[in-house]
Amino acid sequence: MPDEARVRVAVLGAGGLGKAAARIIGMKRELSLQAICDSRGLVRAEAGLPGELIAGVSGDLVEGCRSLQEAGPGEDGAGGVTTLTAIEARHCEDPIGEILAMAPALDAVLVALPNLPNEFIPGVIERFAAAGSSLVFVDVLKRTRAVEQLFALDPLVKRARSVVMTGCGATPGILAAAAVLAAQSFIEVEQVAIWWGVGIANWEAYKATIREDIAHLPGYTVERAKAMSDAEVEALLARTNGLLELRRMEHADDLLLERVGVVERREQVEVGGIMDTRHPKKPVSTTMTLTGRTFDGKRASHTFILGDETTMAANVIGPALGYLKRGLWLKARGLFGVFGSTEFLPMVVR
Amino acid sequence: MPDEARVRVAVLGAGGLGKAAARIIGMKRELSLQAICDSRGLVRAEAGLPGELIAGVSGDLVEGCRSLQEAGPGEDGAGGVTTLTAIEARHCEDPIGEILAMAPALDAVLVALPNLPNEFIPGVIERFAAAGSSLVFVDVLKRTRAVEQLFALDPLVKRARSVVMTGCGATPGILAAAAVLAAQSFIEVEQVAIWWGVGIANWEAYKATIREDIAHLPGYTVERAKAMSDAEVEALLARTNGLLELRRMEHADDLLLERVGVVERREQVEVGGIMDTRHPKKPVSTTMTLTGRTFDGKRASHTFILGDETTMAANVIGPALGYLKRGLWLKARGLFGVFGSTEFLPMVVR
Repeated sequence: MPDEARVRVAVLGAGGLGKAAARIIGMKRELSLQAICDSRGLVRAEAGLPGELIAGVSGDLVEGCRSLQEAGPGEDGAGGVTTLTAIEARHCEDPIGEILAMAPALDAVLVALPNLPNEFIPGVIERFAAAGSSLVFVDVLKRTRAVEQLFALDPLVKRARSVVMTGCGATPGILAAAAVLAAQSFIEVEQVAIWWGVGIANWEAYKATIREDIAHLPGYTVERAKAMSDAEVEALLARTNGLLELRRMEHADDLLLERVGVVERREQVEVGGIMDTRHPKKPVSTTMTLTGRTFDGKRASHTFILGDETTMAANVIGPALGYLKRGLWLKARGLFGVFGSTEFLPMVVR
Repeated sequence: MPDEARVRVAVLGAGGLGKAAARIIGMKRELSLQAICDSRGLVRAEAGLPGELIAGVSGDLVEGCRSLQEAGPGEDGAGGVTTLTAIEARHCEDPIGEILAMAPALDAVLVALPNLPNEFIPGVIERFAAAGSSLVFVDVLKRTRAVEQLFALDPLVKRARSVVMTGCGATPGILAAAAVLAAQSFIEVEQVAIWWGVGIANWEAYKATIREDIAHLPGYTVERAKAMSDAEVEALLARTNGLLELRRMEHADDLLLERVGVVERREQVEVGGIMDTRHPKKPVSTTMTLTGRTFDGKRASHTFILGDETTMAANVIGPALGYLKRGLWLKARGLFGVFGSTEFLPMVVR
């Protein structure tokens, strides 16, 4: 595929998931990483950024990229076609606004920002849509209320001739989509249970994700978790031996499965899991189990199990890019609006 | 939903799968069974057939329905709105031609005919398309060569403003679609292995399905299996204790997954299974296992497992109806042509 045909992607967010996105985009010949930002600045290159190098930056994104530039001309990453000197890396007041200004030179935006508070990512997408940018957006939102806010943007997104694919990670994401497949065998679905395991060697690579999870613990709120200092997170994890066990999480799998009719009531969907913040090995396997009754009166469960060796980054960002491509497919056919991960199969991105 | 809004479906084929389709359609408030045929005749009713009663007919479809009518006014099935006297049941030379003539009063056709020989079902769909009928077709084809023939009909199907959803049962069908979901976590897919188990108490309810399976045995061909008498099938099964174990089957999962890029070469997809023709319990669980390598260098497998209590009928006809609804969605948006089960999620039919 010639470079001109590559899908031009910007990534919002440069934490653990944003960097994984940069790396994976760099490995895909169909995609070109045009820009990535964190809350303090942005990095971009008209001819595409070297995803592998960007993913290797630690600490502040802009400073990390500048260090790379100062270190002299290095190898480009697999997806990069740029010499390091052609990269623009700078701090700025409003990195998202700068990416918004780039919209005419973009095809798609992958939103890997921490969603603290709940309305933050919906607000970002609203900002792009209100500006009339015609783009494909994909998010890996988890909270039901956040995804609800996104669906409320549907008229605005349609007016902007844009497509938003929401809840497109693992859960919600491919696990909820697997529930749509599993539901096909049943005349009545009783329950969908998603139970996830995540293991990370060092929680500091996923500071925002950990806070989003802490917000699900009894006695915590999104606001309280967001306000926690690193020392407070550390202290909490010290008390739990590095483990976070979450039950009956407010996860948008419920809304996304209710919306497409897999369940009648979202209470039939239950999401929980265990995060180990000290070991890369998953503490439990990630599974989706759908239980129902067949037309011939049998009660049974279908199960989808993710391989234990697969990381959160692989299971969240891989699907997000597959849904991004589906979003481009929809947009090319004039099918604008906000769509959930349960409405389509993600496509395969080469 | 008022009756007028029901999707008007004809079922081609009244063997084990065709009857299961009649029963399930009868349980769905969105669908109305307008007609069903076997090779000797057809049964139809303008106001919809009682699926439950049709499914209960044994032996010749038309004669069975006439017996029902003679037995006097019975209860309607869940999906039926017809008194038995309003049902037309008659033998005819060309039942498929008669259903073709009904096309203006139909929305969709579920093809549950035995596909012996390979080109039979493609030929039926070609006949409808050549006649210019604008309909949604869904098939549960299994053989790669049959699905290839269907894809070759794409220009003709487009001209007829029709949609064909092909390979939309279990395998190929939801198991292949599950492989599309599983593939999302990997940067490279090594293998997709589908291993199915089917248990049926009495092979005579699935005479065509059994012959299609026998055709995969070493030394057999589709033609040879089709030509076998019931006594010959019985004799073969007596030698294997009622079990048929099939390996490296020619199954269209390979083509359907290659087509969407899950695998580079269709040889990476392997399908096999065990059918027990004497016990309803599955001899092995039906599983789809996709093995690949992640962006971060991990090798792992994702797995989708069907509950052992679910029957072939539930796992084939349920998905077929879900894909039928997706076909209606595509047609309503002017997206005509032949689509595989790996291209979309099936929808949920209420």
